[in-house]
Amino acid sequence: MSVATVGPVRVVGTGLLGASVGLALAQHGVDVQLEDPSRTALALARDVGAGTPADASSPAPALVVVAAPPDVTADVVAASLAAHPQAVVTDVASVKGYVLAELRAAGADLTRYVGSHPMAGRERSGPSAAVPGLFVGRPWVITDSGESGEDAVLAVRHLAVDVGAVPVVMDTDEHDAAVAVVSHVPQLASSLVAARLRAADDDALALAGQGLRDVTRLAASDPALWTSILAANAAAVRDVLVALREDLDVVLGALDLAAAATGPEDVELGALATIARAIADGGAGAARIPGKHGGAHKRYTVVTVLVPDRPGELARLLGDVGAAGVNLEDLQLEHAAGRPVGMASISVLPGRAEHLETELTARGWRLVS
Amino acid sequence: MSVATVGPVRVVGTGLLGASVGLALAQHGVDVQLEDPSRTALALARDVGAGTPADASSPAPALVVVAAPPDVTADVVAASLAAHPQAVVTDVASVKGYVLAELRAAGADLTRYVGSHPMAGRERSGPSAAVPGLFVGRPWVITDSGESGEDAVLAVRHLAVDVGAVPVVMDTDEHDAAVAVVSHVPQLASSLVAARLRAADDDALALAGQGLRDVTRLAASDPALWTSILAANAAAVRDVLVALREDLDVVLGALDLAAAATGPEDVELGALATIARAIADGGAGAARIPGKHGGAHKRYTVVTVLVPDRPGELARLLGDVGAAGVNLEDLQLEHAAGRPVGMASISVLPGRAEHLETELTARGWRLVS
Repeated sequence: MSVATVGPVRVVGTGLLGASVGLALAQHGVDVQLEDPSRTALALARDVGAGTPADASSPAPALVVVAAPPDVTADVVAASLAAHPQAVVTDVASVKGYVLAELRAAGADLTRYVGSHPMAGRERSGPSAAVPGLFVGRPWVITDSGESGEDAVLAVRHLAVDVGAVPVVMDTDEHDAAVAVVSHVPQLASSLVAARLRAADDDALALAGQGLRDVTRLAASDPALWTSILAANAAAVRDVLVALREDLDVVLGALDLAAAATGPEDVELGALATIARAIADGGAGAARIPGKHGGAHKRYTVVTVLVPDRPGELARLLGDVGAAGVNLEDLQLEHAAGRPVGMASISVLPGRAEHLETELTARGWRLVS
Repeated sequence: MSVATVGPVRVVGTGLLGASVGLALAQHGVDVQLEDPSRTALALARDVGAGTPADASSPAPALVVVAAPPDVTADVVAASLAAHPQAVVTDVASVKGYVLAELRAAGADLTRYVGSHPMAGRERSGPSAAVPGLFVGRPWVITDSGESGEDAVLAVRHLAVDVGAVPVVMDTDEHDAAVAVVSHVPQLASSLVAARLRAADDDALALAGQGLRDVTRLAASDPALWTSILAANAAAVRDVLVALREDLDVVLGALDLAAAATGPEDVELGALATIARAIADGGAGAARIPGKHGGAHKRYTVVTVLVPDRPGELARLLGDVGAAGVNLEDLQLEHAAGRPVGMASISVLPGRAEHLETELTARGWRLVS
């Protein structure tokens, strides 16, 4: 069964997420009705094929997907529950507890409400950035308030599957705690590290390597959106952040002791072990992140190749990797500022690295591996 | 002029960096003499072609490159200055102030000492990981103590150029402050964020996206090495970290206010602006990181394509990018745990994105862009 068999789907809010939901459902033949307070956003969503603007003659929707900005989500969900008394209503806000609390406070019919959080996004926003494949292979968290009806949960599960996502059912609080630690605190940490670069010399920034770029990539995120998200999940984010600050203070104390010493042997007992533990704890945490195929994080061997910065060179390299019969599991590119050469780090299964190195060398590639 | 014209080069410490220096110089016909307290490391370095083990009959070196662990670097530099009274001595430790301070305290001949810090490294270590191209295109910081002789600085500059690096002259303190902000604090932040994952549920980790992976990639670093580095640069790292903690406390205060409110309109005046400013400051800092060709960070347009996880698919995609006549400026791969499809984010010059999207669509690729 697909959501198409349930009846029309109303998408309220036709930004990136809403319009992408519409596009993906339209491919399944679902009757998608669009609503947005912005006439421009609505017309754009229609033009990209996300559905048809709703009007008084639209049939009653069976499912309403609220994809409004986080700070108005609860109001729009409440209005949708009232306007469509037979419909299941879900929303896609990235924090779930505050939506549920506001709905409960407003006396909304929670049997027909199920929270959603599709773990998908892009650097671009708005309906013109919408694509039907946005959710393919991504987790789609479904939060059952405990009062949600079984059919309501099932309808949202079908929605997730229809757009190509992987449904994951979680408690509301569990979800909010999870995104605090895997998304919201990393965002803040990235911003805080990047903010320190404002005061740095240009000469210092010229020494930036891939590590800094990785850590600060999230720092380019939209302040208005993230203010909404962080404020909505303030308690859970604060809990993780307070624990992080405690760890930070321990490291700062050890650094104070190290700074006061004249050499490693003079550092007060335990300070070096404290620093080492902080780094090791980070390694233990990072190792828990699921890898590409659900496995551990670092189970590939990396072969690094120098690649001239010309059109087609990387394609030629990857063609040679394919010709060597080796499956590329991951690829990282690193460029040096102002230099005509980059490094491609190719992750392969450990047993394939040596063969790949031999083949690439034979084909004239310069390895850094 | 190359370092080859100066005379033999002695490499003391044949780990990844030392052996890679030897390999790169050997390609220029330089007589490279190797020293290492580990007979295994020495033999391995010889076997990979990094040079010839030094003995009593070795001619006096003109340049000594100390590539010892950071905590013994100053001692080894002092011993090398004493053992080779005509030689210029440099080291490759990633913190420079403490080496200079220890040498000064030991009464070493600072006219013949010049600090180096090649900004290069790999995930693997040891002489078997050594490659001649390790330094190609990377900055090689040269720190002149103020007492270094002109010829000594010149010799080290030639060394950097000979191994393919870009020499960058900086003050010792300026260097240490720079690496604190662009390397050491990002490492610690990555470790601290990743350490929070130890206590997270598996369900939470399953929601991990590319952002978390980026922020925590450095967290897999070696604790022993990083303890040496952080302890050696403790004062500079602490200064940046204290400033970061002040920013963190401001955010925590704002989150406390937001957590106490029942909705955005109830949050105490200024708290939301505080959060927004923290994110915006991070964006401003990140925008200062030089990009691939020395330009700004985000001047490319990203085209995202769904790529089946089969050998050759990525090569086929990049072949099609090349066939479209578009130069690929950067490439990021993202995989979803357990799913047979990945997303390739292709950075291209803004004027080329639309053409590329048209061409790739025509060739049957599914775009997320």
